[in-house]
Amino acid sequence: MENFLFHSPTKFIFGKDTENQVGELLKSYNAKKVLIHYGTGSIKRSGLFDRVVESLTKSEIEYVELGGVVPNPRDTLVYEGIEICKKENVDFILAVGGGSSIDSAKAIAAGALYEGDFWDFWDRKLELKVALKVGVILTIPAAGSEGSNSSVITKTEGMLKRGLNSDVYRPTFAIINPELTYTLPAYQTAAGIVDMMSHILERYLTKSKNVILVDRLAESTLVSIIEAARVVMKEPTNYEARATICWASTIAHNGFLGVGRISDWATHRLEHELSALYDVTHGAGLAVMFPAYMRYTIMEDIQRYRRFAIKVFNIKDNKRKPLKVAQAGINALEEFFKEINMPTSFKDIEAKEEDIPKLVEKLQINVGERFGNFKSLTMEDAENIYHIACK
Amino acid sequence: MENFLFHSPTKFIFGKDTENQVGELLKSYNAKKVLIHYGTGSIKRSGLFDRVVESLTKSEIEYVELGGVVPNPRDTLVYEGIEICKKENVDFILAVGGGSSIDSAKAIAAGALYEGDFWDFWDRKLELKVALKVGVILTIPAAGSEGSNSSVITKTEGMLKRGLNSDVYRPTFAIINPELTYTLPAYQTAAGIVDMMSHILERYLTKSKNVILVDRLAESTLVSIIEAARVVMKEPTNYEARATICWASTIAHNGFLGVGRISDWATHRLEHELSALYDVTHGAGLAVMFPAYMRYTIMEDIQRYRRFAIKVFNIKDNKRKPLKVAQAGINALEEFFKEINMPTSFKDIEAKEEDIPKLVEKLQINVGERFGNFKSLTMEDAENIYHIACK
Repeated sequence: MENFLFHSPTKFIFGKDTENQVGELLKSYNAKKVLIHYGTGSIKRSGLFDRVVESLTKSEIEYVELGGVVPNPRDTLVYEGIEICKKENVDFILAVGGGSSIDSAKAIAAGALYEGDFWDFWDRKLELKVALKVGVILTIPAAGSEGSNSSVITKTEGMLKRGLNSDVYRPTFAIINPELTYTLPAYQTAAGIVDMMSHILERYLTKSKNVILVDRLAESTLVSIIEAARVVMKEPTNYEARATICWASTIAHNGFLGVGRISDWATHRLEHELSALYDVTHGAGLAVMFPAYMRYTIMEDIQRYRRFAIKVFNIKDNKRKPLKVAQAGINALEEFFKEINMPTSFKDIEAKEEDIPKLVEKLQINVGERFGNFKSLTMEDAENIYHIACK
Repeated sequence: MENFLFHSPTKFIFGKDTENQVGELLKSYNAKKVLIHYGTGSIKRSGLFDRVVESLTKSEIEYVELGGVVPNPRDTLVYEGIEICKKENVDFILAVGGGSSIDSAKAIAAGALYEGDFWDFWDRKLELKVALKVGVILTIPAAGSEGSNSSVITKTEGMLKRGLNSDVYRPTFAIINPELTYTLPAYQTAAGIVDMMSHILERYLTKSKNVILVDRLAESTLVSIIEAARVVMKEPTNYEARATICWASTIAHNGFLGVGRISDWATHRLEHELSALYDVTHGAGLAVMFPAYMRYTIMEDIQRYRRFAIKVFNIKDNKRKPLKVAQAGINALEEFFKEINMPTSFKDIEAKEEDIPKLVEKLQINVGERFGNFKSLTMEDAENIYHIACK
């Protein structure tokens, strides 16, 4: 087991009707003026926006709003948000939505207290030291951004997608009401499921030895997600299954399932280029890339993939043919993605094999010569994996 | 799944040599003068105290010290600590030890900023609102106090053992180096193992439905503890097994395995009276009380006990005889306690059947007429359970 630091200070308020506590909560953190940051307006149609405003008003908290966050959130809206914060003396950002709104809110929080261009931090020109506080009302369980320290922003110029991890803008609180996810389209529900599973898999695929407790916790979470996914695809308003998915998405990415091990993140790097180039939903891109990545790296640690197959997909063990067991696990994962109507190849997302050089070129700009920890990958490896994903 | 609030803001620094970071850490929280609070001096014999002082000195942090914490920590030492803090302007308490030192440190932290008697808070006369910050260097994985909001103190007058939960004194940071637990006597190691398993079981035994994800996480942790326990009883310096036990003790009691469910705590209440009257180690008392409690409540939810048997002790399922499976699980737990040389009956701890009325009388003072949530127990139930534990 590797040495680790685990710090997940976010206050999670989970359950039915919890969004009505948001005013009180903000008040407990001395918020005076809040920027409500959201996506394309579904929170207005659903009445959630009105309930949030009512709760804020009750607690005598002022607000301004900025909607329009799109998947793979753009720097352009971040600049707009920063300007509003500065002009209106906003002291707390409330993201209402999924990973895109939360990531965008984090970037605004970072830029609001900085005189220069917020991209300087994403560009690693200087270290982020201070930001406005961020709170969350989650409506899409997927990215785990509600409990994570990461924010991925796309620079519109050149469609450069880049992530930054900073504890400074980790959400102070996150309100998670599974009922708010009832109306999510099936596609978004499924993409979210792939996303959270990927966050676990990126940590599960490790060279670190002897983290059996964390392996078991990860497997338990994966099994529970798969089980709940099968329920919600048929019964979108099943509270318990939605609740399982919501909480799983959070623990999948707050660091808890990554303690004591060096995690991988190669597949996320590969996917980022896909969604930057084709604007495909992150989770859908991951469904395409993960089976390909796994097939390419299976020889790296057959026993790990074998364990995955047995523990997560209940594949019958065969000690004399561990590779076969391992392969069956990867196939089962791919089948599961198909079952929830996720794409699993370039074709399914209308990505083109001839774009691979372009993808690799962008990847190289973002990661340099090598990436990934489970297997250290070169640009040639990346090319090979993209080709496998074309099949 | 029940609505819940989960907040575990403690920063956990885990791994080899991490105690040497303590000065730096304290400095990051602006500590100027620290009270180092510890037990009966083993940290001096082992050289740990010197390393802590060296780290503090490097970071230019002053300190005073107070040793002498005993198992089932007493109010008398808490008063002494409070006086030192006030006189010496201590601004941070550093507990170096296990649950007793940490619980005692929390009580000192609470009393140091209060003019009256700290017991007022434990007596529920008024609510604790402010306390000094508490940091931890863990040497005994057991109580989970390093990540919990609870502190159990025994009032010497009348040997009244009472707990208080308050987020105000939840540790700011906890340093956990598994190597520091190598020299723990086998008895203390085993008592700690029972303690952390009990923290999980108190949450696992619930009437709340549909918390399957948390059930699985709890079972994974229990299985890992049992497996690691068998290793450390033979190889006390096995790092990986010690590490598993250390991290399990923390997550067993920081709230993570209790989300979305109403937990029980009846067995802890029953045990508190045992250890208050006989000064038996808490974990050893729990090893006596848990099988008895389980046998008494088995009819409350046979299926839950059946699941426990199958998932934690790998008992062969028998759908037509679920009670038999459930009973086998309880027997297996008791056998495991015996295997690690824990007591499992009154006789083993030299407790007396004729003291039962006295135990129940004290219990009633502490809990009132009823206690427990898995099954609401009366004083008559308590008496019956104590009798089962005599067998």
